[in-house]
Amino acid sequence: MATAAALLLPPLLLLWVPPPARGFSLPLQRPGDCGDARYFDISQLSCGSCGPNQKRSAGGERAAVVHVYACQDIGWFLIMVGPLLFVKNAQKIWCVRCEQTFISVSKSCDCSSPNLLTGGLCFGAGESLPPKGIATVRFGQVGVTLTSAWFLKNLQASASACWLYSNLTACQALGNMCVMNMNSLSSSSTDACSLFQYIYANTARLGIVHSIAFWRHNLPWLYYGDQPGLASQVLETNHLPTVFSFKGKSEDVKLQFIAASYDAAGNFLKWQSLEGGLLQLCPDTQTKLNAAYVFGTTYEQSCKISVSKILLDFSHPIFYDLFFEYNDDNGQRYLWAVPVLNLNLQYSEMYVNKGSSMNSWLLTRRFFLVDTLSGRENDLGKLPRIIRVASKITISIRLVSHTRKGTIYPPLITVAYTDVLVQDPDTQSVMVSFSVRYEMSQSEARIQTDITLGVLGGLAVLWSLLRTAGWKRRTGSSVIDLQTVLKFLLFYAGDLANVFFIITVGTGIYWLVFFKAQQFVSVLLPLPTQEKAFVTYIACAFSLKAVQFLQLLVSQLTVDIFFIDWERPKGRVLKAVEGEGDVKSAAAPVSIWRTYFIANEWNEIQTVRKINPLFQVLAVLFFLEVVGFSNLALMDSSSSLTRSSESYVAPWSRVLRFGVSAALWLAIAFLQIIFFAVFYERFVEDKLSQFVDLCCVSNISVFLLSHSCFGYYIHGRSVHGHADTNMEEMNMNLKREAENLCSQRGLLPNTDGQMFQISISRKMRLQYDRIHETLTRRRGPARFLDSSANSFEQSTRAYNTMNRFLASFIDHVHKEMDYIVKDKLLLERILGMEFMEPIEKSIFYNDEGHSFSEVLYYGNETTLLIFDILFFSIVDLASQSFVLAAILTYLQQEIFRFIRNTVGQKNLTSKTLVDERFLI
Amino acid sequence: MATAAALLLPPLLLLWVPPPARGFSLPLQRPGDCGDARYFDISQLSCGSCGPNQKRSAGGERAAVVHVYACQDIGWFLIMVGPLLFVKNAQKIWCVRCEQTFISVSKSCDCSSPNLLTGGLCFGAGESLPPKGIATVRFGQVGVTLTSAWFLKNLQASASACWLYSNLTACQALGNMCVMNMNSLSSSSTDACSLFQYIYANTARLGIVHSIAFWRHNLPWLYYGDQPGLASQVLETNHLPTVFSFKGKSEDVKLQFIAASYDAAGNFLKWQSLEGGLLQLCPDTQTKLNAAYVFGTTYEQSCKISVSKILLDFSHPIFYDLFFEYNDDNGQRYLWAVPVLNLNLQYSEMYVNKGSSMNSWLLTRRFFLVDTLSGRENDLGKLPRIIRVASKITISIRLVSHTRKGTIYPPLITVAYTDVLVQDPDTQSVMVSFSVRYEMSQSEARIQTDITLGVLGGLAVLWSLLRTAGWKRRTGSSVIDLQTVLKFLLFYAGDLANVFFIITVGTGIYWLVFFKAQQFVSVLLPLPTQEKAFVTYIACAFSLKAVQFLQLLVSQLTVDIFFIDWERPKGRVLKAVEGEGDVKSAAAPVSIWRTYFIANEWNEIQTVRKINPLFQVLAVLFFLEVVGFSNLALMDSSSSLTRSSESYVAPWSRVLRFGVSAALWLAIAFLQIIFFAVFYERFVEDKLSQFVDLCCVSNISVFLLSHSCFGYYIHGRSVHGHADTNMEEMNMNLKREAENLCSQRGLLPNTDGQMFQISISRKMRLQYDRIHETLTRRRGPARFLDSSANSFEQSTRAYNTMNRFLASFIDHVHKEMDYIVKDKLLLERILGMEFMEPIEKSIFYNDEGHSFSEVLYYGNETTLLIFDILFFSIVDLASQSFVLAAILTYLQQEIFRFIRNTVGQKNLTSKTLVDERFLI
Repeated sequence: MATAAALLLPPLLLLWVPPPARGFSLPLQRPGDCGDARYFDISQLSCGSCGPNQKRSAGGERAAVVHVYACQDIGWFLIMVGPLLFVKNAQKIWCVRCEQTFISVSKSCDCSSPNLLTGGLCFGAGESLPPKGIATVRFGQVGVTLTSAWFLKNLQASASACWLYSNLTACQALGNMCVMNMNSLSSSSTDACSLFQYIYANTARLGIVHSIAFWRHNLPWLYYGDQPGLASQVLETNHLPTVFSFKGKSEDVKLQFIAASYDAAGNFLKWQSLEGGLLQLCPDTQTKLNAAYVFGTTYEQSCKISVSKILLDFSHPIFYDLFFEYNDDNGQRYLWAVPVLNLNLQYSEMYVNKGSSMNSWLLTRRFFLVDTLSGRENDLGKLPRIIRVASKITISIRLVSHTRKGTIYPPLITVAYTDVLVQDPDTQSVMVSFSVRYEMSQSEARIQTDITLGVLGGLAVLWSLLRTAGWKRRTGSSVIDLQTVLKFLLFYAGDLANVFFIITVGTGIYWLVFFKAQQFVSVLLPLPTQEKAFVTYIACAFSLKAVQFLQLLVSQLTVDIFFIDWERPKGRVLKAVEGEGDVKSAAAPVSIWRTYFIANEWNEIQTVRKINPLFQVLAVLFFLEVVGFSNLALMDSSSSLTRSSESYVAPWSRVLRFGVSAALWLAIAFLQIIFFAVFYERFVEDKLSQFVDLCCVSNISVFLLSHSCFGYYIHGRSVHGHADTNMEEMNMNLKREAENLCSQRGLLPNTDGQMFQISISRKMRLQYDRIHETLTRRRGPARFLDSSANSFEQSTRAYNTMNRFLASFIDHVHKEMDYIVKDKLLLERILGMEFMEPIEKSIFYNDEGHSFSEVLYYGNETTLLIFDILFFSIVDLASQSFVLAAILTYLQQEIFRFIRNTVGQKNLTSKTLVDERFLI
Repeated sequence: MATAAALLLPPLLLLWVPPPARGFSLPLQRPGDCGDARYFDISQLSCGSCGPNQKRSAGGERAAVVHVYACQDIGWFLIMVGPLLFVKNAQKIWCVRCEQTFISVSKSCDCSSPNLLTGGLCFGAGESLPPKGIATVRFGQVGVTLTSAWFLKNLQASASACWLYSNLTACQALGNMCVMNMNSLSSSSTDACSLFQYIYANTARLGIVHSIAFWRHNLPWLYYGDQPGLASQVLETNHLPTVFSFKGKSEDVKLQFIAASYDAAGNFLKWQSLEGGLLQLCPDTQTKLNAAYVFGTTYEQSCKISVSKILLDFSHPIFYDLFFEYNDDNGQRYLWAVPVLNLNLQYSEMYVNKGSSMNSWLLTRRFFLVDTLSGRENDLGKLPRIIRVASKITISIRLVSHTRKGTIYPPLITVAYTDVLVQDPDTQSVMVSFSVRYEMSQSEARIQTDITLGVLGGLAVLWSLLRTAGWKRRTGSSVIDLQTVLKFLLFYAGDLANVFFIITVGTGIYWLVFFKAQQFVSVLLPLPTQEKAFVTYIACAFSLKAVQFLQLLVSQLTVDIFFIDWERPKGRVLKAVEGEGDVKSAAAPVSIWRTYFIANEWNEIQTVRKINPLFQVLAVLFFLEVVGFSNLALMDSSSSLTRSSESYVAPWSRVLRFGVSAALWLAIAFLQIIFFAVFYERFVEDKLSQFVDLCCVSNISVFLLSHSCFGYYIHGRSVHGHADTNMEEMNMNLKREAENLCSQRGLLPNTDGQMFQISISRKMRLQYDRIHETLTRRRGPARFLDSSANSFEQSTRAYNTMNRFLASFIDHVHKEMDYIVKDKLLLERILGMEFMEPIEKSIFYNDEGHSFSEVLYYGNETTLLIFDILFFSIVDLASQSFVLAAILTYLQQEIFRFIRNTVGQKNLTSKTLVDERFLI
């Protein structure tokens, strides 16, 4: 026994010949094609010529021992005498001889001891038989080894008949038993596979079939060789001649698989197309089942099947040899053998196929769906004790890299079997799945992404450094301290977020466009496992953007602002002093209501945006869910926006989901910005211009410091000198201005420039802080005690001081704190920084745009939009629900808007002394 | 021939006996139950005793002519001699005699002329045979009549064998041929059904089976009788003993159908449960297929099946007799025969079953899924020319009215067949569908709805009359003119909309609660056709509500408003007259900015609502689509919010969709109103109170006229006398007020009442109009020419006049236009009208709430909310998409809000003279 086993391993290595250049292909021939003079060789799967005295039997297989006798019709009597059995067949009478082995061994139809009758054949006592096989089958998953009735009955006979007589059916039957043993090769026992290998190793003289080195004449082809690296050679050396496309003729877009099917006894049944759900255990409509073989459609199907249904439908196991069918240039049909990766295969007690390393794989050929046979103990008519189900079948289609026209490597079918101990078939069930997946090497895409990331990341560092430098200038300090480093990191976070965003949006849209729009297939989507890097990038982009967004929020909420009221008392008011009948004069008070008005309006434009964020969210949702853009994210080849309810719905691709939604966000945002800029703000209302106009009409300037020494100034001095007046005069003023009867509104005489970016000197800032301190002292620590009349007076005094100081500053009163007005250089505008340091004099830069909006939501639309897109995408990636993403994005917007409004209002109150009750 | 046909119709009428009280039930017996001494009678579907010398044959059916012979095992030789055929059966040798008819007729195994050999039986020349049947089959849908090979071969023989020998199989075969002929009864030809009826009519002496009057001994049961009204008697006289529930043991929630199946030749095959998809031609997973028989789950399945697959799967037709299985009290299994309504059945050339009137229906029993047999011409081995497919199968479960515990009438299975001319099986396909639907009489619900509608509609008329009367009072007119009628109709539209809304929401929530929450079934959902009235009601509610909403919008957009400025000049201002060095005094101008401020704030609260409408929409969407409340609208018995992806998803019920969404809208709106009223408006901000406070602080009153002689007054006279002052004084004033150092804000001394509903006298109104006219003359027709300084002055003068007039009116200056302040009566409050007519004096009613909000969105939340709910529901009913409904509802809200804001702003400008540029 041990010697026999030693013979068996490793025979494949000895016989290894490199595969021929044309790969593993053979012409397709069907039993019906062979004609009368030829028979169908079930081992070679092609027609062979009948020998002399031989005739094709009914099934078309070679009937090597069928001799034809002319027998006369003897009416009602059928007699069997001696070695002849008379069989009535289709109106004629054929007489068939007894099994040849009976005749040869015993010269009769009797095979008694010492001859060996096994499997219907008779073997003489003296013949050289193959080693004695063992009939036990091991079901590893349930930990049971049993003696199989089928193996007991047929293993030895098949092996002997195959070995001695090269009986084709017997060889197939032996092969099937090896397949039922999971093709496992072990040196310790003489199981079915060992017997097969023994015969395979010792019949090298018979030669090979179809120039395929692993396909021995008369034997079924079960194994590719076991050399290390052979799997990758088989799978990646050749590619199929078929060219696939996403649109076009049916044969270019369909994967045409065909299987030769055999029963357990080794009889060839027929050629069967995989279409119609041959390998799909889960029931479904024909259309959906066949969608599995549409090129480019990632297919997944899984369900639970009850054991009783399996037992009913698969009472007899069927074995399949799978081929890929294609036309050669002459239109001749050819087959390409599809290798099988059996995950349950053990090679020297190791599950070599479970690893991801292709080098250790041992590819095989034949597989089955359900084996209810080998698990039957004692009696073949009874229920099996254990059944084995191909619970996970995956067909992998791998695109050749750099192909421009849809060339693929030979497909690979991966099969994982599950052993089920049959106890209560009606309640037991098995989870089965079938999938077709498409892969291509993503290494190039990864390299390109890495390069882009590197380059853009480097640029981001430079840009962040530049912005930090600009920030240093604006804060008026020049030492590099911890704060500077922190600020740099914050800038860098924002820029890096943009880099990640650009890369992910680029990748998403790239896949969307290149995958969905291609006719001749050149790219395939990344697999879910390959998407991990992409998802990580989005997560990075989101977290970095969130940091930037929060920093933006904080900086906007702490901005310094003051409203300069230019109004001077119109004169002195005559007042009757009570009780004295005397008349006194006092300066007429200047009404504070204009300041209230301005503060109120400023408060209201805090969270105005360039787009309507809610419309944005709902429009995106509308296009995704109602119009059907979400269908573009399905992993199939269709670029249509609708799917019929009858058709198969492929799984989602996360990359495509992100691509579609980001593209929609950007497109709709772009349209909205155009709409608001070109139409709405021009013809309906422009909140920012309205505010600037209002400043001018109400004779109030806005003095804003976003940094220590940098900020904005809106010049609002009324051209009429007074604004605090009645309706009559107001209307008159407005009319005069409309008719161009008064001077221009600008800060400088005869100019229109009302808006400035200001870079103030440190001296100016110190003065500002000094006055401001008296304000904050009152309103800061003493806030809760400010019922004392004293604090009121002090803060009002501070307000008046500040008002006077800033007004006189603008009026060039303080010679030591003067300023000049100039234009910004082009480069300064582009870089968003100032080259000149305001040492002696402050500098006012003319500003045609509303650049003061940078302390509002309005001026930071890009950041807000990208943050929204990323938020939406993160929620969608986590939940796979666009509806939830839209709702949460809206909530997020509302919450941050509420925070921005409420805290912004508090800041405004504390900085401008306008009572919060007027900010409504 | 003609006489034979005349005999046939109508035989059922003659034999009519009323059905027994216990209905159409029989005990369930299986062939295996009969034991050795009894056989299974395939006609009666129960066990019968074997006669003397008889033994049960292998299949269990009666082998009436099987005589048992002891035959010896003679080894290798099988001999057939004379009438004996020796058959080897399961290791033993049985010897079976030749067909009895051969022996009786010819005394040998030979049946030569003049005897008639047909269908394997031999008939003597002299015997009384049934009329000669015709072997043509008519396929009406494709307009083809062909001679069927099967009928040609078997019709006459089956009829004869059934008639002469009561051969059970032959009778079944004859019955099957009648079924293949669509059970059609016609007096013009002797087809299979005529033959069957002939035999049925002439074998009355044999008696009936299982006490069922239509079930003749030995014959299959094909027809119920053809009396008018019999169908409703069969379907609605008895109810099944089983009690169904939505939750509970599996046998209470499952419909247990079982079918006796026969092949075309009349052999009984087996009892088969419908579970596992016996009648469902479309493939699907076991779980989804079996969902069809879960009580309460409306099931619909349809798909296209290729003709080639049909030909493959249904090469032999199978005939089913369907029964409903139940336990009696003793646990014995019983069957209840399920009647079939064959839509293709013709009775005297009329499709009687296609009508909806139950009275003309002709119920039958047996049906098939696919008939590929009768359409074969000439050769039974060839493809059929035409096949017939049961393309639409519907099982109707009808609940007994007033049941409290799920009692149902016998189910009805409706079958419609489609004829398909087989031309190219691979490309041809047939649309097939299978459905289970649940009905109950909705007449009671309809009556209740009608009654509610009548009562509420009547109340609505009364209420509308009352409101019209109130409106007449408010407009100050008393003649009933066209406008009054129109106004009445508008009120009525609104009230009727509410009535419809209440009824539909009530109905929707009723179904939701009663259908989904019931354990013992007492109600079933209305069918789609029964939902029509409901949908009409919603449509009515929506259109009427839309009318009301538009009317509301228009009335709000034309309201009269004026801001009374109480501020008086603080004194006289000393002005240096230019060029003269002289000092003059003039009244200090009162600043208009407070009015601007107030107008601006008023403009902003126009569209403030009691809820956040957008949050509302998105919250509803969130609960429906993300949390899964939409699953409650599925027509199944589950009240869970989630469905596993593997389970069957029932179709939507429109009533439930409306019920779920309306309930969610109302619940979320309620929570929002609570939240805003209890928390937000108290602790965050209350726009309306802020506005009233602001009025007081700014020394401005609001005078509002929503009708000619009715409106609102917000008293805003500052308690400090002056408000047009600087920050110092403002803060002081606020502080003094906070410390209760000044008088109260109310119009009357020592009261707080700032808000009033005002009912002004006609004289007052005339005066108002007179002043207003000068305003509108200026701003109305001359609007586009208002660059003339003149118009400015005139309108300013009109403004001042109006201001003075209204201020003096409030100050009781005009004795002829005085007013009194009083409380409203409770009934006045409830009815929203005033009982007293303001003839001499105007009347100011104290108002603690913000009732002036009735001219804003805020005070009309109910109308807006109901309009939104109905809009949402209408979109959803039309599109079956909650997402689209949510998006369109949002758009609708935005559009109307934009209109309300823009036009409202224009109205404000024209009525108060505040320049539009200050309303930002």
